[in-house]
Amino acid sequence: MKGAFTKTIDLNSDLGESFGAWRMGDDVALLAIVSSANIACGFHGGDPDVMRGTVAMAVQRDVAIGAHVSLPDLQGFGRREMAVTPNEAYALTLYQVGALHGFAQAAGTRLRHVKPHGALYNMAARDAKLAAAIARAVHDFDPTLYLFGLANSALIDAGRAVGIPVAAEAFADRRYRPDGSLQPRREPDALIQESDEAIAQAMAMAREGRVRAVDGSILELQADTVCVHGDSAHAVTLARQLRAALEAADIGIAPPHGSGRQA
Amino acid sequence: MKGAFTKTIDLNSDLGESFGAWRMGDDVALLAIVSSANIACGFHGGDPDVMRGTVAMAVQRDVAIGAHVSLPDLQGFGRREMAVTPNEAYALTLYQVGALHGFAQAAGTRLRHVKPHGALYNMAARDAKLAAAIARAVHDFDPTLYLFGLANSALIDAGRAVGIPVAAEAFADRRYRPDGSLQPRREPDALIQESDEAIAQAMAMAREGRVRAVDGSILELQADTVCVHGDSAHAVTLARQLRAALEAADIGIAPPHGSGRQA
Amino acid sequence: MKGAFTKTIDLNSDLGESFGAWRMGDDVALLAIVSSANIACGFHGGDPDVMRGTVAMAVQRDVAIGAHVSLPDLQGFGRREMAVTPNEAYALTLYQVGALHGFAQAAGTRLRHVKPHGALYNMAARDAKLAAAIARAVHDFDPTLYLFGLANSALIDAGRAVGIPVAAEAFADRRYRPDGSLQPRREPDALIQESDEAIAQAMAMAREGRVRAVDGSILELQADTVCVHGDSAHAVTLARQLRAALEAADIGIAPPHGSGRQA
Amino acid sequence: MKGAFTKTIDLNSDLGESFGAWRMGDDVALLAIVSSANIACGFHGGDPDVMRGTVAMAVQRDVAIGAHVSLPDLQGFGRREMAVTPNEAYALTLYQVGALHGFAQAAGTRLRHVKPHGALYNMAARDAKLAAAIARAVHDFDPTLYLFGLANSALIDAGRAVGIPVAAEAFADRRYRPDGSLQPRREPDALIQESDEAIAQAMAMAREGRVRAVDGSILELQADTVCVHGDSAHAVTLARQLRAALEAADIGIAPPHGSGRQA
Repeated sequence: MKGAFTKTIDLNSDLGESFGAWRMGDDVALLAIVSSANIACGFHGGDPDVMRGTVAMAVQRDVAIGAHVSLPDLQGFGRREMAVTPNEAYALTLYQVGALHGFAQAAGTRLRHVKPHGALYNMAARDAKLAAAIARAVHDFDPTLYLFGLANSALIDAGRAVGIPVAAEAFADRRYRPDGSLQPRREPDALIQESDEAIAQAMAMAREGRVRAVDGSILELQADTVCVHGDSAHAVTLARQLRAALEAADIGIAPPHGSGRQA
Repeated sequence: MKGAFTKTIDLNSDLGESFGAWRMGDDVALLAIVSSANIACGFHGGDPDVMRGTVAMAVQRDVAIGAHVSLPDLQGFGRREMAVTPNEAYALTLYQVGALHGFAQAAGTRLRHVKPHGALYNMAARDAKLAAAIARAVHDFDPTLYLFGLANSALIDAGRAVGIPVAAEAFADRRYRPDGSLQPRREPDALIQESDEAIAQAMAMAREGRVRAVDGSILELQADTVCVHGDSAHAVTLARQLRAALEAADIGIAPPHGSGRQA
Repeated sequence: MKGAFTKTIDLNSDLGESFGAWRMGDDVALLAIVSSANIACGFHGGDPDVMRGTVAMAVQRDVAIGAHVSLPDLQGFGRREMAVTPNEAYALTLYQVGALHGFAQAAGTRLRHVKPHGALYNMAARDAKLAAAIARAVHDFDPTLYLFGLANSALIDAGRAVGIPVAAEAFADRRYRPDGSLQPRREPDALIQESDEAIAQAMAMAREGRVRAVDGSILELQADTVCVHGDSAHAVTLARQLRAALEAADIGIAPPHGSGRQA
Repeated sequence: MKGAFTKTIDLNSDLGESFGAWRMGDDVALLAIVSSANIACGFHGGDPDVMRGTVAMAVQRDVAIGAHVSLPDLQGFGRREMAVTPNEAYALTLYQVGALHGFAQAAGTRLRHVKPHGALYNMAARDAKLAAAIARAVHDFDPTLYLFGLANSALIDAGRAVGIPVAAEAFADRRYRPDGSLQPRREPDALIQESDEAIAQAMAMAREGRVRAVDGSILELQADTVCVHGDSAHAVTLARQLRAALEAADIGIAPPHGSGRQA
């Protein structure tokens, strides 16, 4: 039905973050909403059994699969910055992309994108050498994979420089600074608490490519994909409302490679 | 020069078992001797950086690459049996095969085989359900990959049953029981200490497809690949002597897929 | 109020099994019910931050603290048997007991008991050498610590043999085989689903030191401590009902060292 | 024989850094030279079996035992900085100190000091909050333990502030900057290659409490303990020569708590 919309945008979510006996997130609910699934690859969440199951669920719902690659920090859930070298970042990206590819291959599907997770995402947004190493790893594995990164960041630049397709990511519920970076979580206004405001921000990014920064200035921000969360019932509801609002505005939900289908 | 021999056999070795700051094995020496490299995938040894480097070295020496998949037991080096289910064995095989594939893909080469490591190897030799799960994982990833397993074992049977090519593995320096299983390491005569005897055993297996068991009986044992080690200078010397003896007997060293070349 | 009861029994529960970003169990509810807390030590659950917080909560509620030592298997939650040697079991017990002692010491309290977790618990119930190694580790660390183990098991025997106090553990909601072992979880009748029946079984063990086995025979089973769970609202309710039923039968809830107080 | 010297200094070395099947360092040689052993606690090296064995060897040689606590980064050997919070640093210090205490207790000895390892050592040298958290963990476990840290660093200040004894550490083979920090390893002159120069530097620190910085200026640097390494035959030889030179200058080798004996 995608053809019915004049324009499309991707909705992505972080999935498969359970580990062993521990559960996390409402993956089933999110798979009914998003077009791209960033699947944890064992370094911050996700074990081989969880990965296998998450890939199977995503295939069943026709959601595009990507590797959510992380620093090796299970206890810290990949959220603590670590001083990895570009060479280490290259290797850990390849390792995790390959591991997820194993499950995709066995399930008869393929990967569509790679998105760094947590601290690696933030480091790659501002560190050009780290960003280049990650982009090169994605390129060397499969140059048709999309690299997901923060809009206007070093990671998006690195993806373009190495010649792979990129998807600039935006957040409905995070506030932006005038330079396009996210207001850090330690700031009291980092998160947009009101659903209406979050949806309005996402709609402005999707329709007009702009967002109002914390200082009131207007920021150019072309969003190819919007990240939604499933860590609470509220978050899932917000994701569902956002999808409805986008579709009501004649914007379809589809992965960046231009198809809602895997093949 | 392989064409110069009337017959070939594979020599394989476990490589890339360093981890982080810790070194293990003489990979450089072994890569000049063997035709197949079983590369550790991070569960018993090998980290992403080591894997990348080992793949690069193997490509340079034109040695066929395979995934050496293990139980998740870094401290125990994958040598302690764990009660994993067949489903868990399936998933951990896919994960590790995929991870190594990542590095092979980026290096412009491809995997040729999969060999379970340590305790997983032994468990899969006797447990048909576990063996079937591993064989199916290899099949589902790439049905042209060779499955390496103990000659006459459940793992070889499982590979045949699922329709993937198999390579029956034999050991120059381990003694056999009449049923074809290896004399356990806890037995005083488990290992053949004398180089001459080890080479003689390997030659008998390669030329005649038979070996003398610990009880003196003669065992039919078709060896497609012989495992050699690099954990001591003595072991490397033995491997080199074995290769020379095989070639002197007009038996070339080549991977089971019939080519010394990667492509 | 303990003095008001003519008899006491211990109620213990497995706590502090969260890890990093993942939550598990309703520790707050259980700490209001039990007299002994078995705290995970990082090998199957529990990270240093979780351990610190769990010790603090237990101290505040005046619940006795013990180390819940496990095989090193985070993904398998310590529930997969591993072929560890007695020497390895000795060392991993000391490591985990020591680690938890660190938090107890800093919190101004002390450990009171050690209980193996999951697969290690089951292995130690039947393997005398493994049991002896664990008992010796507890003894060598602090011979006043209680060793918790399955009633009538090799672990209880090992504790007695090495001269440390032991607490024979029974289960309200598990069925027993005539030899005193637990009906394995794979059997359909392994678990007692009805609360009334579970409470009745626990009461019979507490008052009469006997339990009806799956074959109908009556089994002598002296229970010093009864294990309750917090993995569901139902489980917490059952634990609360069991405590009420015991107290109504004039059986107080107190740790085996004979005091509800830490010091 | 300590009484024969007019003055003493401590020599310390990082020991027990093997892990599982991987060996590292010449612990036997070093234990004949140093007075304090910093023993890895499982986070960067050292597993429970290695820890047990290292404690036993140190006890036998009458070398004082300390916990060498690290960030949780086995692959990176604890050398990659991680953004841990002070609360996390407090907890991981207690965990590791407690774990090593387990082995010391079972061996009939006790811990004498704590020294952060690698990246944690460097972070604690300059970050006052992190340093305070580590010092407080040591204090809360046992306020008689010495805290080893870089001379003139935030860690030494933190130890003094919390009221525990400290030992200012100096390096024979590292060059210093005028502010007392170490010349970073990325600089070409970070290491002193010549044994004579390294020994001369250590002697100047031990006798005069001063060292010449990379800019030629003279730096006040009171060294209570000097770190020596065992990662090469050269390093062990240097350590032995340094001990001999110190003793020749009437400076005995003894741990900071003033005794070469454990008890």
